[in-house]
Amino acid sequence: MMWRAMEVEQRKISRAVISRLPRYYRYLGDLLEAGVERISSNDLSKKMQVTASQIRQDLNNFGGFGQQGYGYNVKYLYTEIGKILGLDKDHNFIIIGAGNLGQALANYASFERNGFILKSLFDVNPRLEGVTIRGIPVRMLDELEGYLQENDIEIAALTLPKSKAEEVADVLVANGIKAIWNFAHTDLTLPKDVIVESVHLADSLMKLSYNISQHNEIQK
Amino acid sequence: MMWRAMEVEQRKISRAVISRLPRYYRYLGDLLEAGVERISSNDLSKKMQVTASQIRQDLNNFGGFGQQGYGYNVKYLYTEIGKILGLDKDHNFIIIGAGNLGQALANYASFERNGFILKSLFDVNPRLEGVTIRGIPVRMLDELEGYLQENDIEIAALTLPKSKAEEVADVLVANGIKAIWNFAHTDLTLPKDVIVESVHLADSLMKLSYNISQHNEIQK
Repeated sequence: MMWRAMEVEQRKISRAVISRLPRYYRYLGDLLEAGVERISSNDLSKKMQVTASQIRQDLNNFGGFGQQGYGYNVKYLYTEIGKILGLDKDHNFIIIGAGNLGQALANYASFERNGFILKSLFDVNPRLEGVTIRGIPVRMLDELEGYLQENDIEIAALTLPKSKAEEVADVLVANGIKAIWNFAHTDLTLPKDVIVESVHLADSLMKLSYNISQHNEIQK
Repeated sequence: MMWRAMEVEQRKISRAVISRLPRYYRYLGDLLEAGVERISSNDLSKKMQVTASQIRQDLNNFGGFGQQGYGYNVKYLYTEIGKILGLDKDHNFIIIGAGNLGQALANYASFERNGFILKSLFDVNPRLEGVTIRGIPVRMLDELEGYLQENDIEIAALTLPKSKAEEVADVLVANGIKAIWNFAHTDLTLPKDVIVESVHLADSLMKLSYNISQHNEIQK
């Protein structure tokens, strides 16, 4: 019953800690690539511009990764955080919308290293029929339902205009998709057990703009 | 001295409220487009899946936008939130990296509606020299410094590999860029007065993956 103990332990971890884990994972990956075997919380703190005590506190949530006077074992910590993030399992995914953004996502080969396996793209543009991106085919949107019934796909990235997004999301969910990575400029209304992670680019640009105007006010 | 009073008032507003403003702005924009003139906090609450009391509390931060029994004037609220977000002023911006992601950003014509005016893209790929996207030219990266000295650009979007990002960011800052919209898979180390808003796509995908694995544990 080990996993149940683990589960209980994980559920207590705050959202704030969880939201910092991908960043830890990214930094540890860079260290690994650079051949670094261990790192103190102080050194990691300088690199990440987070206080050392924050790092110790965050990582203590997951048990004793660090050893006093030795620091953290980079590879071990990287692997364990990867497991918590679910990166030790493969996730098949598709991209709906093979325009520039869809193609940009399809070209991030590094997703594959983390277990996100792109299986197909879909689009309505007949000129994209039969085109492949890194060997991965673009199919026509009217093949989507049949495709989902025959293939085991967990995640769909939506890079569609917002007018189409809701309708396509419903088809995805009706055909077994469990998680949607949403780039459409809209919030999707979906059953509660569907996991949605939205990237609202316009919202992000507005935050930037807000910070510029605050900065300008202070300069006056 | 109106602006100073406004400034003081704005600075008290919590980060959490600010981070919700772009979403209010997006919903109000949709309502405006649909011809809706006013809306009660209850109706807005249903649309946005936020409690009505949260909405009233958030919007009270900015003074009396709403009237008891009348609801919010959509256009007025949209305009005022736009001002707070700095969208009433134009911001000239450039994109460094004219690959798929850079081109995807260049094609979001809706940024222009919010005052973000794309002036140029830059890339190192000689095949992109002279190419235009919506009439906006792609220039070669070695022209960047001269270009910045002759043009009034406030924001640069970075859609470059992380190995190049830091170096280019330094050139941007040395030549007067005040704000960076960063898509490179790295956190930039820049002077404190430079505003950076990062979109880490891999981090977002990892959060999705974490939520899938939590969900699967609960299902067991």
